[in-house]
Amino acid sequence: MQRKSPYQESASQNIMAVILQSLPQESGLTKIEYEGPRIALYSKNPSYLMQNSQLVSNMVNTIKKRIVIRTDESIRKPQDESAKIISENIPKEAGVAGTLFDAVLGEAVVFAKKPWMLAQVGEDFDNIELAEKTGWKVRIRKAPQNMGLIEALYRTLGEAVGERTKFYREVGDKIFRDKLSESAEASLMTLGGFAEVGRSCMLLTTSESKVLLDCGLNIYAKDSLAAMPRFDAAGIGMEEIDAVVLSHAHMDHTGFLPALFKYGYSGPVYCTEPTLLLMSMLQRDYVRRSGNAALYSEKDIDSAVIHTITLTHGIVTDISPDVKLVLSNSGHILGSTSVHLHIGNGDHNLVYTGDMKFGRTLALENASWNFPRVETMIIESTYGGKEDIMCPREEAEARLASAISKTVSAGGHVLLPVPVIGISQEILLVLDRFMKGVQARVLVEKSISEATAVYEAYPEFLSKEVRQRVLESETSQFGSQFSIVESESLKNGSSEPAVILAPSSMLIGGPSVGYLKQIAGDPHNRLIMLSYQAVDTPGRIIQDGARQVTIKGEMINLQCQVERIDGFGSHSDYNQAMEYVKRLRPKLRRVLVNHGERQKAQNLASSINKFFKIQTQHPLVQEAIKLL
Amino acid sequence: MQRKSPYQESASQNIMAVILQSLPQESGLTKIEYEGPRIALYSKNPSYLMQNSQLVSNMVNTIKKRIVIRTDESIRKPQDESAKIISENIPKEAGVAGTLFDAVLGEAVVFAKKPWMLAQVGEDFDNIELAEKTGWKVRIRKAPQNMGLIEALYRTLGEAVGERTKFYREVGDKIFRDKLSESAEASLMTLGGFAEVGRSCMLLTTSESKVLLDCGLNIYAKDSLAAMPRFDAAGIGMEEIDAVVLSHAHMDHTGFLPALFKYGYSGPVYCTEPTLLLMSMLQRDYVRRSGNAALYSEKDIDSAVIHTITLTHGIVTDISPDVKLVLSNSGHILGSTSVHLHIGNGDHNLVYTGDMKFGRTLALENASWNFPRVETMIIESTYGGKEDIMCPREEAEARLASAISKTVSAGGHVLLPVPVIGISQEILLVLDRFMKGVQARVLVEKSISEATAVYEAYPEFLSKEVRQRVLESETSQFGSQFSIVESESLKNGSSEPAVILAPSSMLIGGPSVGYLKQIAGDPHNRLIMLSYQAVDTPGRIIQDGARQVTIKGEMINLQCQVERIDGFGSHSDYNQAMEYVKRLRPKLRRVLVNHGERQKAQNLASSINKFFKIQTQHPLVQEAIKLL
Repeated sequence: MQRKSPYQESASQNIMAVILQSLPQESGLTKIEYEGPRIALYSKNPSYLMQNSQLVSNMVNTIKKRIVIRTDESIRKPQDESAKIISENIPKEAGVAGTLFDAVLGEAVVFAKKPWMLAQVGEDFDNIELAEKTGWKVRIRKAPQNMGLIEALYRTLGEAVGERTKFYREVGDKIFRDKLSESAEASLMTLGGFAEVGRSCMLLTTSESKVLLDCGLNIYAKDSLAAMPRFDAAGIGMEEIDAVVLSHAHMDHTGFLPALFKYGYSGPVYCTEPTLLLMSMLQRDYVRRSGNAALYSEKDIDSAVIHTITLTHGIVTDISPDVKLVLSNSGHILGSTSVHLHIGNGDHNLVYTGDMKFGRTLALENASWNFPRVETMIIESTYGGKEDIMCPREEAEARLASAISKTVSAGGHVLLPVPVIGISQEILLVLDRFMKGVQARVLVEKSISEATAVYEAYPEFLSKEVRQRVLESETSQFGSQFSIVESESLKNGSSEPAVILAPSSMLIGGPSVGYLKQIAGDPHNRLIMLSYQAVDTPGRIIQDGARQVTIKGEMINLQCQVERIDGFGSHSDYNQAMEYVKRLRPKLRRVLVNHGERQKAQNLASSINKFFKIQTQHPLVQEAIKLL
Repeated sequence: MQRKSPYQESASQNIMAVILQSLPQESGLTKIEYEGPRIALYSKNPSYLMQNSQLVSNMVNTIKKRIVIRTDESIRKPQDESAKIISENIPKEAGVAGTLFDAVLGEAVVFAKKPWMLAQVGEDFDNIELAEKTGWKVRIRKAPQNMGLIEALYRTLGEAVGERTKFYREVGDKIFRDKLSESAEASLMTLGGFAEVGRSCMLLTTSESKVLLDCGLNIYAKDSLAAMPRFDAAGIGMEEIDAVVLSHAHMDHTGFLPALFKYGYSGPVYCTEPTLLLMSMLQRDYVRRSGNAALYSEKDIDSAVIHTITLTHGIVTDISPDVKLVLSNSGHILGSTSVHLHIGNGDHNLVYTGDMKFGRTLALENASWNFPRVETMIIESTYGGKEDIMCPREEAEARLASAISKTVSAGGHVLLPVPVIGISQEILLVLDRFMKGVQARVLVEKSISEATAVYEAYPEFLSKEVRQRVLESETSQFGSQFSIVESESLKNGSSEPAVILAPSSMLIGGPSVGYLKQIAGDPHNRLIMLSYQAVDTPGRIIQDGARQVTIKGEMINLQCQVERIDGFGSHSDYNQAMEYVKRLRPKLRRVLVNHGERQKAQNLASSINKFFKIQTQHPLVQEAIKLL
């Protein structure tokens, strides 16, 4: 603890005083420090605090800040020794795939095939006994089929221990500083993703802070002015931003984030843990594919990783002196969230839905809607057009099954161009059941399978039903019998018909284009479009009826069958979006519609206004709206 | 001329080449230089170019830039010698009040009581014969009753010859640089004066430039956050701005301008010459009255003066690589203008009405409305409420005459709290006729009389009728028989009843408050409110019916008569504003309503939308709107 001076009394010192007064000697407290938006209590006897959780709850209620218990560094045994202790004390049957250490948080994370054997399955999956033996805080997680992405994450984190330690302190200092202004003000500037899809980004400016919501890159854009969020037009320096909040991992919401760090941002990024893993996977893939044209390098992606503070659903987190954040499930992809910002002293509540599915899928629960207060809501409108009413899920599954059966029984191949994350995993769950009775190989491109591993590692973000199955089963629920491939040649393989899942979903490049070239010429084969197709992409052109399309300079004639099945969409359709607003209606004062082509945004806005009599706007990019 | 390099070919060099090719030897051309947004041709034989105006017109048509003829410095005789030559060559009867020199422009301005004796009354009032004799460009102007303000202006300009010369060149370099961007974009950010009155300010951001429209200060505001334009919230550094355009002189449109210079702005300010004179008068008055609380000093006002480039009505002026400006009469006060901005290559036309009177007054012509193109119009709504329908002008004059007659014949005084500029001069014109038959002194506060001198010096900005009278008459048309006073005690003077014109118009301070205290106690006296009263000002409180009001801590009980006569307003009333929009309607795509209390802006916006089916918004401060 720093020495106290009457001339330096600060908010943080008041907090420290409250904590010290509430804790008995046995707590073994050694220091109290900011850990980003949390207060970390370091202890030589951490199990006391972990077991007396009521004590910590009381403190949280008093100081209104989130508290985490950390083990004092002096009691932590070396990592290799700790790993040994852990493996010796864990039954073989638990199927431990590995233990990863984070020296900054003092956490050892044990990945096990049967996690329920090692810990009460709860939010923290703590194992107090192992913590006492190693001096590390031991968390138990489900081991996915493939540990690659997670190991890479811990490697990046492990290489920046000093930087991260300093960063956590500094972020806390900024969040918990005294307020500079007495007035409560807020306005929102649209930087991308308004009346368009592809580079979601907006800046919330309050009396005390600038918070960026999403930071997307439109990889389909024709020029850089249309590809990047309009920081240039807004005249905002990256270093002026205080915090970034990401709704989910897709590139159109996170693809510009590393550029932010490249050009001077060094503050925190808030998102869920799956979002962190999945976005850096997509960003690295973008850098590799783009070569010299990439807007940033892997180093910048590492910077983003190092500065990310992951949050779970439903926890109120201070992210600046006048903004509190709560993330909640938005039902779009694993780890996707709606963002609830509480501005000022209860002065204004803003909910940004992010990409949102108000409708159940196999993989995910319905989007949360029960916000305690909302004055302004920003809602997405990907499928906001009057025509965007999707077929029921059961019908979509039946159509998919029938199309596959018909094609493979005639000896044809089925190509499903899908995004790496989202619909892919949903379709894998569907095919896992369905393909058991079908004579065909299922080929899954490797990048999809890597993303699926993250779905398996974070069962707490899955639907209740799939979560249970993932936790209890040693084999994958996402098609353990399917083949993982890399841009396979269909001729070289078995002659057996294949069902192929491959990105890109919009046929702008990647393996799906290679497969398309192989199947396009034969009328026995079938191309099935399942996901959203952005304007001007080859996928959209085909979906709109063209049977000749030019991809990367090469003309492809489609003699194969082409079908669109829309019921698997990971966005709400028109009816679902309206249903969602209806639920929230009593709380809403204003709705802003974003993330949709101009006509779709306009249609959803005018419907909301007409049916629910709520003030509704559909702003363009480069606009600012006063909220408070 | 600079030496030419094939590696430095620039837009400016092309212009220079065109000019050189078009001019014969006799033109005596010595150099071609930028003079802000104009191209100045320096010549040893300037009368050749002045007489062969067709030659210059042709050049203007070719290069699409404004050209001015300047005399070469080598032929200019010293100022005192030139002054002597001028006075010897001018007939005594012309009544020359003085000659003022501007060494940067090489202009000698002769102020004469009978200017028509010395020059064709036209836009330039040039006297070529005197130019040949002195080597200076000699302009003839009307001499006002009081030369004080004009002499002070030339003094300030004369003290900054080096700085201004450099400034003019640099401004030209910036305006005529090559474009940096191929896209044409524009958005407007509201910094003040939206859904409120008092600190009009907005920022137009285009692909190439940032142009500030007005820069007002709300001197009635309760705190500084409400007083100043919200540059803080917009995060715009003063040095980032490329140009400032001012619609007219009132403090709520110009009061923050010197602060801009204080905090780093050093670019050009565009407005009419009367606006320059009148605003610096008001700003200096504000600094004197505010003492230590002033936001800036006289030095900063001088900076603003030095950086101002004055324009006349109807001339197209480049103010940045992608913005052209035309000012036109807005009928509000002397020199007040509507601002027409032509953005990009004909991509968007924005008209900002400024404060605007679409209705004739004695002093000024009706606001111009015949813009060749307008996509977006920003219209003021001071009197935009349904209730804001003013009595006809004839009725207002009759009511004023009757109120004055009744009061003075009963031995009472009449107090007219009026703004220094605007309604004051209008009322002076009215009283000039009317008071000839009335037995009462008219007391005019000195500051009003100083502003009136500017009205007399710029007859080209007056209504046709008054212009003619001012030019032809040696005595003032604004009440030559009235007494100019400074906060007079009514008891010390003659016992004759008085009609008093004194600022402030809203009784927030200044002489009008002193007079009010003197007349308030006697029911024979009368207070007449003629102008707009801002929310929360003592004037508004009285207008709303209170007969007890606290001004600067002192409570005043009003036993005198109180009357409001609204037909002299220098803003359009509701009907006039609607009539103005109706005229422009075929050209308009969008209307933004500003400069009105929230309800008034809202009412005018909804009326325009309802009656004319034009997309209409009434933004708040701190919003941004995409125009293009």
